[in-house]
Formats: sequence, C-alpha cells, structure tokens
Amino acid sequence: MTAIEFTLSTTLAMPIDDAEVQVRTALADVGFGVLTEIDIAATLQAKLGVEVAPQRILGACRPQLAHRALQSDPRIAALLPCNVVLAATPDGGTRVDAFDPAFLAAIVDDAELATVAADARERLQGMMERLVAGAGPEQRPDEAGASDATRA
Amino acid sequence: MTAIEFTLSTTLAMPIDDAEVQVRTALADVGFGVLTEIDIAATLQAKLGVEVAPQRILGACRPQLAHRALQSDPRIAALLPCNVVLAATPDGGTRVDAFDPAFLAAIVDDAELATVAADARERLQGMMERLVAGAGPEQRPDEAGASDATRA
Repeated sequence: MTAIEFTLSTTLAMPIDDAEVQVRTALADVGFGVLTEIDIAATLQAKLGVEVAPQRILGACRPQLAHRALQSDPRIAALLPCNVVLAATPDGGTRVDAFDPAFLAAIVDDAELATVAADARERLQGMMERLVAGAGPEQRPDEAGASDATRA
Repeated sequence: MTAIEFTLSTTLAMPIDDAEVQVRTALADVGFGVLTEIDIAATLQAKLGVEVAPQRILGACRPQLAHRALQSDPRIAALLPCNVVLAATPDGGTRVDAFDPAFLAAIVDDAELATVAADARERLQGMMERLVAGAGPEQRPDEAGASDATRA
C-alpha cells in the first residue's frame, strides 16, 4: 500500500510506559531532546469519547540540526520536531515508529539539508539499535509476552 | 530547489503575535484545535545561544480526522499533528506555512486516508482564506509595513 517509506520502526516486547523510558534514554544518548508529548489515546478519549490502544507522540529535536535545517528552508519547520511514535500492540508490546529524516532530503533538494538529514538519520538509527540491544534477547518482538522481564 | 510541495502558505502584514491570534481563531473556525506550541526562537536561544527571527510551530489537530487517519495507517502519527508554522519576516510581517495534508495522501496509498487528507486540506485552505480575508486589503503582503492597521 505504501508508496514511500517515511519511518524507522521497531517493536519492543515491553509495555508502552517502559518503552517510553527506553526511548527517552536512547534519544538522549544520541543527542536528541523531547520538546513535546501528545497522548493520542487520551486526546481521542477526551475529544471524541473513543477508546484506542495507548499511543503517544514524542516530538524529538536536536537543536543544532534543526537550526541548520531551518536555515536551509524555513518551511522544514512544518515537519519538525522529529516525531517518535509509541503504540501499544495487542500482545503487550510497543511499536516504535520514528519519522525518518531521510524523508526531508527526499522532498527538498538542498545539499546542506541532505547533510543535516543524514546526521539526524544516523542518530535515530542509533536510537533504534540501542532500543533493540537494551531490550535484550528475551525482549525480542518474536518473544513478546515475557512481561516479567520487561524491566530486566 | 524544491522537488515536492508540502505546505500551504501565505504571508500576513502583521506582527507574529497578532498573526498567531488570527491563526488560532481561523483554525478554530475550520474545526482544528491546537495541541502543541513550540517557540523555535526561544528553544534555539536556550539550547544554542543563537538569535533567530521569531518562529513558532502550532501543532493543529482535528481529532475526528486524526482518528480516521490513524485507523488507516498508525504510522501517520509520525506526521501528526498538522503543523502550522509562523515566522516573522524582515518587513514586520508573518509568514504562515501549514503542512499540506495532501502530502499524506501522496506518500501513503490508501483510499480512506485520501478522503481524510482531502477533508483536512479543504479546512486548512479555508483557514488560509480566512487569514487573508481577515487581514483586509490594507494587510496584503504587497503592502507590508502598515503596522498601524494590524488589528483592524
């Protein structure tokens, strides 16, 4: 269905609250801070009265890169901060989808922006690798359900 | 330079604080709320010590549409909320760039999402029209500098 990939994704075998702690730590490790947090499930519950699985958006930002990107093209702010989405899965795990900065370089043809996007992408890939490594072998998506080990 | 358009844009002949009031009102008129606000200039000042022109990101959302979009493809959250960027221009005006929802339909091939994106786009176009109309003829971008009339 999808024409263009726009996320870096993984699934962690831990509840969303634990996954958020891991994501925030991994983001900090790669030099990203979190500027905003939107609780999608709470927002939809409050506004529409509907129940959806826990889902949150963390608005991540590395100011050095944002500054350079905005100097290349101020409209890039329409795609900032870099969202990292956490969504609870039916088996008790958490799916993590980060906006892929490479997507910026794909839609705006600018050499400096391409450099910035590549830097951001490398960092977010590092975040994803930290998440998978930190979860440990007993936390692999294919072994979801090992909830007793989620804080290992 | 740009390969793909991803914003709906206009420029208002009024300072950013006034423009923000107008944008928030126009967003409400078309059924969008504001979930987040990021003061880009303040953030870059605080984190990097650099001075940039006033720039803000309003994270706009119409929950009914967000809900439908997320049901079509949960990864869409990586592109939510719909950012409306305000940036002060050198002549005392404010540029407004809204993320164009049509962009979502361009990157994810899904019929329901296309319907949702078209609805959101029509509303945001309505917001832009309200902004231009509300600014009045003396507020047109080509007559920037008429700061005495910014609240007309």
